[in-house]
Amino acid sequence: MLAMFTLRSCSTLWASWTVSRVQLLRSLSGMSVAQIDEEVAKLLQLKAKLGGDDGKHQFVLKTPKGTRDYNPKQMAIREKVFNTIVHCFKRHGAETIDTPVFELKETLTGKYGEDSKLIYDLKDQGGELLSLRYDLTVPFARYLAMNKITNIKRYHIAKVYRRDNPAMTRGRYREFYQCDFDIAGQYDAMIPDAECLKIVYEILSELGLGDFRIKVNDRRILDGMFAVCGVPDDKFRTICSTVDKLDKMPWDDVKKEMVNEKGLSEEAADQIGAYVSMQGGMDLAERLLQDPKMSQSKQACAGLTDIKLLFSYLQLFQITDKVVFDLSLARGLDYYTGIIYEALLTQAGVAPVVEAQNGAPGSTEESVSVGSVAGGGRYDGLVGMFDPKGRKVPCVGVSIGIERIFSIMEQKAEACAEKVRTTEVQIMVASAQKNLLEERLKLVTELWNAGIKAEVMYKKNPKLLSQLQHCEESGIPLVAILGEQELKDGVVKLRVVANREEVDISRGDLVEEVRRRTS
Amino acid sequence: MLAMFTLRSCSTLWASWTVSRVQLLRSLSGMSVAQIDEEVAKLLQLKAKLGGDDGKHQFVLKTPKGTRDYNPKQMAIREKVFNTIVHCFKRHGAETIDTPVFELKETLTGKYGEDSKLIYDLKDQGGELLSLRYDLTVPFARYLAMNKITNIKRYHIAKVYRRDNPAMTRGRYREFYQCDFDIAGQYDAMIPDAECLKIVYEILSELGLGDFRIKVNDRRILDGMFAVCGVPDDKFRTICSTVDKLDKMPWDDVKKEMVNEKGLSEEAADQIGAYVSMQGGMDLAERLLQDPKMSQSKQACAGLTDIKLLFSYLQLFQITDKVVFDLSLARGLDYYTGIIYEALLTQAGVAPVVEAQNGAPGSTEESVSVGSVAGGGRYDGLVGMFDPKGRKVPCVGVSIGIERIFSIMEQKAEACAEKVRTTEVQIMVASAQKNLLEERLKLVTELWNAGIKAEVMYKKNPKLLSQLQHCEESGIPLVAILGEQELKDGVVKLRVVANREEVDISRGDLVEEVRRRTS
Repeated sequence: MLAMFTLRSCSTLWASWTVSRVQLLRSLSGMSVAQIDEEVAKLLQLKAKLGGDDGKHQFVLKTPKGTRDYNPKQMAIREKVFNTIVHCFKRHGAETIDTPVFELKETLTGKYGEDSKLIYDLKDQGGELLSLRYDLTVPFARYLAMNKITNIKRYHIAKVYRRDNPAMTRGRYREFYQCDFDIAGQYDAMIPDAECLKIVYEILSELGLGDFRIKVNDRRILDGMFAVCGVPDDKFRTICSTVDKLDKMPWDDVKKEMVNEKGLSEEAADQIGAYVSMQGGMDLAERLLQDPKMSQSKQACAGLTDIKLLFSYLQLFQITDKVVFDLSLARGLDYYTGIIYEALLTQAGVAPVVEAQNGAPGSTEESVSVGSVAGGGRYDGLVGMFDPKGRKVPCVGVSIGIERIFSIMEQKAEACAEKVRTTEVQIMVASAQKNLLEERLKLVTELWNAGIKAEVMYKKNPKLLSQLQHCEESGIPLVAILGEQELKDGVVKLRVVANREEVDISRGDLVEEVRRRTS
Repeated sequence: MLAMFTLRSCSTLWASWTVSRVQLLRSLSGMSVAQIDEEVAKLLQLKAKLGGDDGKHQFVLKTPKGTRDYNPKQMAIREKVFNTIVHCFKRHGAETIDTPVFELKETLTGKYGEDSKLIYDLKDQGGELLSLRYDLTVPFARYLAMNKITNIKRYHIAKVYRRDNPAMTRGRYREFYQCDFDIAGQYDAMIPDAECLKIVYEILSELGLGDFRIKVNDRRILDGMFAVCGVPDDKFRTICSTVDKLDKMPWDDVKKEMVNEKGLSEEAADQIGAYVSMQGGMDLAERLLQDPKMSQSKQACAGLTDIKLLFSYLQLFQITDKVVFDLSLARGLDYYTGIIYEALLTQAGVAPVVEAQNGAPGSTEESVSVGSVAGGGRYDGLVGMFDPKGRKVPCVGVSIGIERIFSIMEQKAEACAEKVRTTEVQIMVASAQKNLLEERLKLVTELWNAGIKAEVMYKKNPKLLSQLQHCEESGIPLVAILGEQELKDGVVKLRVVANREEVDISRGDLVEEVRRRTS
């Protein structure tokens, strides 16, 4: 692999040298074959040298597989998305925490089932055995248990690591952000759960990603449904994961998988089929509570009663227009114990057909469908796994699919051809004449000291054109132009980049004028 | 290590069981020795079971050595510091980038000399060999070369990793933040260099850490000085690192080290001693340019001329009151090629006597003295090490010693007993009477939808006292109290937590009133 890359970088060099030499050759008309051979020999020598000297030229210039740098434009979009999300979390009174990027290996052991093979381990260099975090939920549970915290409302935005098969064009990376909000604590039913949905609703509305739906279901309803439809206990998990494919496959195929691959009876499958086609709101929950079969399951009834309660709170939160109780929603993760939910973009044009970037089989996002941008649920047992005495801390949370949102925002930015600014500079201090560096530095200092975002070119005598060009390229809206005359008159020529309008402003009024025009 | 922790957690359990059993034993008066033995055997059995069952009790609840979680209070301080710093970077027109937390191992190879042993490697799980980044400068240089970027002004705030001996009580961690600002590009001398100093000045002033000094020197002046004092070429580096100890050791000890350990002649050492005691401004640079010995070194003269030019720009930037040209400043890092600088807090009471948290021998921070909070310099050769054609991109940058600043801010927050708020909640929606959950949820929705940061307790019928207590504890300034009467009257009782003042506000005016009182 490394050899291949080194080779590739050599051949690129070789190609560029060849081109320039060939141009040279063309200019030398009437060269003999011997001369050409000589040139070729020289070039080959040069090539060998490039690959073989002090090592300077042998660097493999790339980021590790499945990772990427963020350039300033991507960072500007990332910052905007984070600001919207964090602002929403804060509006709901959340605190934030941070945990190390690696954990003791054993902290992660036994939490991810088959996916444990995707965990990055650190080399044993003596001392503890460490692994890079795989998600933010397990470190959160470790943090709560370790600090004996029984209630907290926190968000955590940080990178996690999965040695998955990357599909970077589809937004799936080995290093990617997770953006989690969780409420831990013993509270009255469905109030924090409803707030999580309110938060998803607010964030997706504010980001302007187009129309969306939030599907809601409950682990207990699923389990109850499987029980009353005659699914054997030991097949709940596997049938559940087949149900989960309903957003990518038609029912007939899902049924086939249940019957042919998973060995379910046709009758049981048909009964499931009838239920999982149901969608509605509080009314559906009410109806199912009266359903002769479903009502036989205590679990299902508990779940349905909670769904009713949840919808009553969602009404108060004014978000029922986008929330659907959907019996086909069956998120993969084992640790959910109650309500589960998932938000999907419904405008095909906006939602790119990409796989879940976190979509490791069996992981949180296993069952994330096309267009899914958030998901979560209640997990009342996880923290207890870390507590020495097994004390449980009930939790409900949501994870925003931030990498997919980045992709969509990037595409939108490109599509609308709107220039993404990577700085916030309000004004450039420029001059048209020579020998005014000192005056430019004096003025930019005045602006900086007044809190204005300002730039000056690092040249003694830059051309006015190149100063204006820099403004156009980086979207700086104003230019303060200094000249001998302006200095004499105690004014600054203020130029609006967009329309090239120029107006003299008294030096003392400049700060106020810039603030007024860029607020 | 793991065994020790497991043992410790067992013995804690053991202790608590023993206590309750001993209490039990006390209540059973007149037990025989045999009975006691039996009890002991039972207890030991229990103990073995605790250590040996399903694994629930065997978790080691800790973060890896040299790392820590940030709790919400620490995060609030961290956010405040970052905001100040980022705001300053943006005022100066900087963009930001991000790079992966790990790099190809070979990207880091040969960049850190002896410190390479402190690099965290990832386990070879097939595929590329990877290492965690050790600083942000090498990834930056890799980024520039890889993307053929020849000029950029960027900041990068991110965690870096060093398998150093942690000294966490003194703020030295294995995972810690770096906060770098760099200007890359071919510009006229000393203009970007001066802006870096302006930025340090602004950040330290705004953070209010107390008085500070910024020491300035130039690698070329140091080298020239060593040459004219008769230091052999091959001893420049080692003598330089001895000079660097002047802020921790008196001159006599430094001289002893030069003469006795490094084999320098006494005469050469004395000549160095005369120079490194010099401090001043532009005048000192002027004087040294006339110095019969120093002026013999071309290198030194180039450096001194640039120092003069630098100070002329610092005057325009209005920051000469804190900047000192100090010939004893000799930062360790090999890659500096021109100006170097370092900022120190000068108020002993504020600056804790901690070692540089990044203080690996030979690293950027090797020579950081007690109280040092920022440092940097010009490095014109580093990017060229990554470029296939060795093309150089001149760079100058500064690294803010953010971990030390966190420590100081945390200490200050504790010292002044001022409560650090971990949320920004403006108002709590409460009620004194029962059965008003729905009304509370309705009102909090109105507030959220208007962009107000608001909270409500997740209980059907919380006690007023516990609602008010929550406000006191988390610093929420206002409470909106709902009762039957208020609902009838279409008002909300607005309570100011600080002085317990209560006033009825018409429901329609509440949002404006909250904004007014919390702006």
